[in-house]
Amino acid sequence: MLTTQQVDTCDIVVFGGTGDLAMRKLIPSLYQRDRDGQLTSDSRIIAVSRAGLDGPGYRDKVAAELPHFLPKDTYDPETVNAFLTRLHHVTLDVTSAEPWVELADLLTAAEDRVRVYYLASAPKLFGGICHRLQDNGLVSPQSRVVLEKPIGTDLASAQQINDEVGAVFSEEQIFRIDHYLGKETVQNLLVLRFANTLLEPLWRSAAIDHVQITVSETVGVGNRIGYYDGSGALRDMVQNHMLQLLCLVAMEPPNHYDRDSVRDEKLKVLQALKPLTGHNVHRNTVRGQYAPGSIDGQSVPGYSEELEGQPSNTETYVALKAEVNSWRWAGVPFYLRTGKRLDRRASEIVVQFKSVPHSIFPAIDDEMIPPNRLVIRLQPDEAVRLHLVTKAPGPGGLRLREVPLNLSFAETFDERLPDAYERLLMDVVRGNPMLFMRRDEVEAAWEWAEPILTAWQESQHLPKRYASGSHGPAAATALIERDGRTWNDEE
Amino acid sequence: MLTTQQVDTCDIVVFGGTGDLAMRKLIPSLYQRDRDGQLTSDSRIIAVSRAGLDGPGYRDKVAAELPHFLPKDTYDPETVNAFLTRLHHVTLDVTSAEPWVELADLLTAAEDRVRVYYLASAPKLFGGICHRLQDNGLVSPQSRVVLEKPIGTDLASAQQINDEVGAVFSEEQIFRIDHYLGKETVQNLLVLRFANTLLEPLWRSAAIDHVQITVSETVGVGNRIGYYDGSGALRDMVQNHMLQLLCLVAMEPPNHYDRDSVRDEKLKVLQALKPLTGHNVHRNTVRGQYAPGSIDGQSVPGYSEELEGQPSNTETYVALKAEVNSWRWAGVPFYLRTGKRLDRRASEIVVQFKSVPHSIFPAIDDEMIPPNRLVIRLQPDEAVRLHLVTKAPGPGGLRLREVPLNLSFAETFDERLPDAYERLLMDVVRGNPMLFMRRDEVEAAWEWAEPILTAWQESQHLPKRYASGSHGPAAATALIERDGRTWNDEE
Repeated sequence: MLTTQQVDTCDIVVFGGTGDLAMRKLIPSLYQRDRDGQLTSDSRIIAVSRAGLDGPGYRDKVAAELPHFLPKDTYDPETVNAFLTRLHHVTLDVTSAEPWVELADLLTAAEDRVRVYYLASAPKLFGGICHRLQDNGLVSPQSRVVLEKPIGTDLASAQQINDEVGAVFSEEQIFRIDHYLGKETVQNLLVLRFANTLLEPLWRSAAIDHVQITVSETVGVGNRIGYYDGSGALRDMVQNHMLQLLCLVAMEPPNHYDRDSVRDEKLKVLQALKPLTGHNVHRNTVRGQYAPGSIDGQSVPGYSEELEGQPSNTETYVALKAEVNSWRWAGVPFYLRTGKRLDRRASEIVVQFKSVPHSIFPAIDDEMIPPNRLVIRLQPDEAVRLHLVTKAPGPGGLRLREVPLNLSFAETFDERLPDAYERLLMDVVRGNPMLFMRRDEVEAAWEWAEPILTAWQESQHLPKRYASGSHGPAAATALIERDGRTWNDEE
Repeated sequence: MLTTQQVDTCDIVVFGGTGDLAMRKLIPSLYQRDRDGQLTSDSRIIAVSRAGLDGPGYRDKVAAELPHFLPKDTYDPETVNAFLTRLHHVTLDVTSAEPWVELADLLTAAEDRVRVYYLASAPKLFGGICHRLQDNGLVSPQSRVVLEKPIGTDLASAQQINDEVGAVFSEEQIFRIDHYLGKETVQNLLVLRFANTLLEPLWRSAAIDHVQITVSETVGVGNRIGYYDGSGALRDMVQNHMLQLLCLVAMEPPNHYDRDSVRDEKLKVLQALKPLTGHNVHRNTVRGQYAPGSIDGQSVPGYSEELEGQPSNTETYVALKAEVNSWRWAGVPFYLRTGKRLDRRASEIVVQFKSVPHSIFPAIDDEMIPPNRLVIRLQPDEAVRLHLVTKAPGPGGLRLREVPLNLSFAETFDERLPDAYERLLMDVVRGNPMLFMRRDEVEAAWEWAEPILTAWQESQHLPKRYASGSHGPAAATALIERDGRTWNDEE
């Protein structure tokens, strides 16, 4: 059973407080933490938006929408009512020059609380909001700021955002959120690696054949197309989420499980990534763009139709082969792929071990012994599974059988797993940035990603079109198959 | 699901066909194999005893007793009736000189069948029975003989039995049975070791701290006391069953999973056992004898009371520390213990890995991270469990949790596991002796065990008395604790 500890009394200020992220994720996550008793009774949640709502209006909006974003068995009218009393709303145009009187009045009444500024707004506003917070005297030593992705669209713009925010907040106060790092299974990967003696000796090129990281979506870009067309899959998924996952798989054991030991080791991985430039980009990456097709029996338009026929080279799919130039990983490819409008929704890391060097067992029907695999699944269901070979029980001849072992929980575990945002929000209040990206990490990731974008831009080749509802471009299959390996597409 | 293949038509002749082993194990096992369709329709089971029964009389006896030794859901009157028609009985005093007319008539009517002579009788009769089989012209090229333990009481007597049986049957025809080797989990140990790349690199002194092998019984010697008092726990359990288990844990990878590759590797382990002689015996072994006590709330007499006050130094308990002098195992102790009238019934192998060299995680309540353990349980329930450390799910601080993973079967596996005798009997019919002890193994085991018996005999010390229903002698706890280790007594 969980034992949750109350966090310090806090004011959580959400810029973009009526937006999609706030309504779908942040407010429901805070409800769950409140329901578990983790928020002190006088902690407040202050939504900031241009919506022109007062407190009661915002509470009505949340009361109406919250039930849609909660698992049914966690919805309880009485608990919701108590939660609503924490909510406030401040109407504000962050781009206007007027003083932030209402917000200041609310906050300065409780000067020494932990104060969280959650910027769930467009990244181009990050710098401005921070400056205005400072101008209005709202940056206390106990203040923290949370930045949602994307942090820039290339190295220079990321540096600019980091400079602007960094002029107001110290690095210890800045929480660059990547919700993948808040997943139970992602953290369990670190525990499995470093709290057991069984995996670490094998966690290297001598025993591991390759690693696959997949983020596969069935949805298209939808109403985010305005943002997305200037971004694409490499910026939207690979540069942040997927490289972070790669770092957790590949990093050396940190000396301590603390903010800088862990982030120093992740940084080392990013710095060890073999640069992909020029000709190498075309050999080791595949980009695609979805064409019309069908998902779950429904026909869907292609990307360019969604752009109303405007020509675009924006990729909605990327597959690439990365390498980590380190003693531990030399020669072990990391295959990454992500795309929209694919045939299944699945985010997972597959660590595939080498095959047995020699089989002592008589082959039945010429079958090879399947190699061991560790599968860390983030979506749709979180799970960590180790695929081992055991004896098929029975009195007949010896037959081998591959079995997946659930490493997350040995017995059935009925409790609801907390959403990643729940953990991460509480980490912000606690002031623990370990699971957040440090400035140097973000910039190192851009340093590696930018030459790929440049090479694509300079290329004659267009993204490969793939039918919506398919596996993605055939070239992505070829990318891994020509190395004698296969994407893991098991359910 | 199982797919069982029929074995060749066979006549299975059980000497001691009305005895305890036959009625409790052999006949029920053959029933199960028949029920699964593994016996051809004309295969026969011929019981030999001095009981003076005819065929119908024996079938009545089996019909009456069989239900007591079958899991309820496998008992089916119609199947039993069909099975009974296979049964025959021949009355015979194997020590008399008369020709074996009735048995010969039965067998020679089907000359070229596979013929199994199962000697479920006193070992002192083994040589005589074999000679009589030969004299009566009953040893065909397709004949096999199965020997039950004990094969001798020391090296010389084992050699004598092996010589006598070997004068009639070739080594390929001799099946020295050790039912521990027929257990599903024991065979699964070999599959886990050699069909996965995860365990073998760790399966050595660099990663393993020590190994424990326990065979703990709650029963006393009962009506076997006549035999037992001349034997004792070392001869009855350690020299055969427990050393075989030790061999399977410790052996190098055989080149093939076949009769001689596997047995060659087991032999090498026996030959690598560090000899225990003289002073070393007293330092590294503990013997005990049960005193009165209580088991499950019932008071029970001590061993000497059961011997009606005759003084006896026979041990009903042994604990010892063995070492394997090999590159792989130097410095890794193998702790063995077995005893009767203990507080629990459990047979298991525990492979305890080393602790993590350094914990990166903050210690909660000064708790150490528990070391990984692989537990192979043979009794009362067969299971293979790997104890790993994972993250306790939940949004609080990072907490570690040890979870046992069932490696035998990932999902619930409802099918009945076959009894070890079922597999081994079919292996005899198939002519596959891999899971049976070869002559050189038996003799190598005696070579190691005999000096211990000699040192005990020459010693002034008597076996330590331990209360029935206890853990065994305190000295056995001290044996392992003085090395900073602890017996695994988890349920």
